[in-house]
Amino acid sequence: MKRREFLKTSAIGAAAAATVAAPAIAQSMPELKWRLTASWPKSLDTLFGAADVFAKSVAEATDNKFQIQTFAAGEIVPALQALDAASNGTVEMAHTSSYYYFGKDPTFAFGTSVAFGPNQRLNQGWYYSGGGKEVLNDFYKKYNVTMRLCGNTGCQMGGWFRKEIKTVDDLKGLKFRIGGFPGRVIQKLGGVPQLLGAPDIYPALEKGVLDAAEWVGPYDDEKLGFYKVAKYYYTPGWWEGGSMINLFINNDKWNALPKHYQAIVEHAAAYANDWMIARYDLQNPPALKRLIANGSQLRAFSPAIMEACWKAAHELHDEIAKTNASFKKVYESMEAFQGAAYPWFRVAELNYDSFMIRHLS
Amino acid sequence: MKRREFLKTSAIGAAAAATVAAPAIAQSMPELKWRLTASWPKSLDTLFGAADVFAKSVAEATDNKFQIQTFAAGEIVPALQALDAASNGTVEMAHTSSYYYFGKDPTFAFGTSVAFGPNQRLNQGWYYSGGGKEVLNDFYKKYNVTMRLCGNTGCQMGGWFRKEIKTVDDLKGLKFRIGGFPGRVIQKLGGVPQLLGAPDIYPALEKGVLDAAEWVGPYDDEKLGFYKVAKYYYTPGWWEGGSMINLFINNDKWNALPKHYQAIVEHAAAYANDWMIARYDLQNPPALKRLIANGSQLRAFSPAIMEACWKAAHELHDEIAKTNASFKKVYESMEAFQGAAYPWFRVAELNYDSFMIRHLS
Repeated sequence: MKRREFLKTSAIGAAAAATVAAPAIAQSMPELKWRLTASWPKSLDTLFGAADVFAKSVAEATDNKFQIQTFAAGEIVPALQALDAASNGTVEMAHTSSYYYFGKDPTFAFGTSVAFGPNQRLNQGWYYSGGGKEVLNDFYKKYNVTMRLCGNTGCQMGGWFRKEIKTVDDLKGLKFRIGGFPGRVIQKLGGVPQLLGAPDIYPALEKGVLDAAEWVGPYDDEKLGFYKVAKYYYTPGWWEGGSMINLFINNDKWNALPKHYQAIVEHAAAYANDWMIARYDLQNPPALKRLIANGSQLRAFSPAIMEACWKAAHELHDEIAKTNASFKKVYESMEAFQGAAYPWFRVAELNYDSFMIRHLS
Repeated sequence: MKRREFLKTSAIGAAAAATVAAPAIAQSMPELKWRLTASWPKSLDTLFGAADVFAKSVAEATDNKFQIQTFAAGEIVPALQALDAASNGTVEMAHTSSYYYFGKDPTFAFGTSVAFGPNQRLNQGWYYSGGGKEVLNDFYKKYNVTMRLCGNTGCQMGGWFRKEIKTVDDLKGLKFRIGGFPGRVIQKLGGVPQLLGAPDIYPALEKGVLDAAEWVGPYDDEKLGFYKVAKYYYTPGWWEGGSMINLFINNDKWNALPKHYQAIVEHAAAYANDWMIARYDLQNPPALKRLIANGSQLRAFSPAIMEACWKAAHELHDEIAKTNASFKKVYESMEAFQGAAYPWFRVAELNYDSFMIRHLS
């Protein structure tokens, strides 16, 4: 039904372009109603909130002519089928994490994050000016979607563990809910990665089906309640240095949009992108304080664990790159960007931030 | 002339809203031609580039109905009069740095950066979700403009010095081109701050009218040629932890815009904002390499200098806050945001970035 409505509207648009007598308003601002399915419950008001901010922004920019209705995980399709729904046209758009779909092809990982990838700013830098947007969308074509950056969580936490992880051996046999492709690194180190959508994690951790679980950071993790059943909160989430949240748009629907509606979607996604990280930076600090006040124990992964993970991650990426041309292409593009940018980041940013943190912590 | 054209267009818009027989296109997408004056020469293709990206984005989102022509510094008004031109309606918009106008009121400083203020991400966080946008625009009302964040340079470099700065005493008598309000901190330490627009800095540094000059970072500084006449390149620019670039819009013109055009401007500014920092993170790394290959000597301000500047900056800010209510209000808002956010930044971001930089530098 939605599909037919859309086709009818764009047909009017096309006719109007060729006929001066047609109502000018149909030509310039056609009425559209689209649906967006998200991988988040509404309670995660930063992730789901960004989908809403995006949709509201598009409506505002089109005088409410282009309306996008947002749906939480499970309302139309489950959390981890959001991409498929956009790909096959069940909905026009999905707001999700590309790396959830690494089972189709590990190249999906780069759209969100890989272990030891760029931080929030450098992922965005790669996307906007390092060729990231282009190489990723070249890959996504095969799945009949185009992707726009529409949020970032910042560097995530390493998650909630029932027992302390003191050595690399402690990862062996660990049943660990971890988002997407980075689970393969955990697997290389003997862990048992599990990919569950947000609503399913807490019960699994509570029942002991999971030994550990990571989601995002203090604000979201607090809402999901993990601190009630796992005491140790680890940092950093080395597999999510600056995870990008993705807006996938069905390619046929995208190509049929008037050019100025495409531009409006593009800019509204950038606005929602800025909004999301700002919300996290507002909400995470007090949430972390509350968690610690509630008895959660903050722990850092030891240097030995970090080094073992670095090594395992690069072995994994290099192995896959040998047989997967898409993976190789995107991997090399990302590595080139961060390989140049991080040394520069050291000169001014890290120098400045280290000084500020000494004074303000 | 431009003013009259605008009034005519918005009068048509208003009439159309009340008259169903009026052409629908005038109602939904009025044709507007605005002018934007920038504080940058066109050669600074990241700063001026963001103004262009913004203007192009607005045109694309309105099917070319809303056109904004961009002008470089000096084409309509000089670099440091951009705000006044927007304020008095000479142009509709200015793309500039708020802190250039600290002579009117030091509160202008916060719109760009103050010494030891937030880094790029946290300035953006403060603007979007920490109340920054609201407190700043409440202040700007007095100047008949409204401001939108439209770019960020990231943490800047400390600038180019003819002689090494080894002790706090070396700042005494130093004729230093420094952007905006932070010059007052240099003054407190015995230096002689000078505020010059981009095109005027190189000749002054070459002739010895200046002993030192800071602009932004490697990519822009290289274009301006400072390395040819000053050997020592200092880091970090502690007065520009993450300088925001500002789009000022004449308030009367803004209020007369249709709501959806306001939304389009808002989102296009966010898009240009993301674009600018991404461009810097692409262009700064190779520029820094070239500068060092050309013989520039990288230096870090000593801990003693950093501490003296921190102390002087806070004394200055506290002094002004005692007698200037606007300054106090904005200062407290910004300090509250960064005071909460930086300790959180330490937990995951700094931890992760430090590890990455050790491996990638």
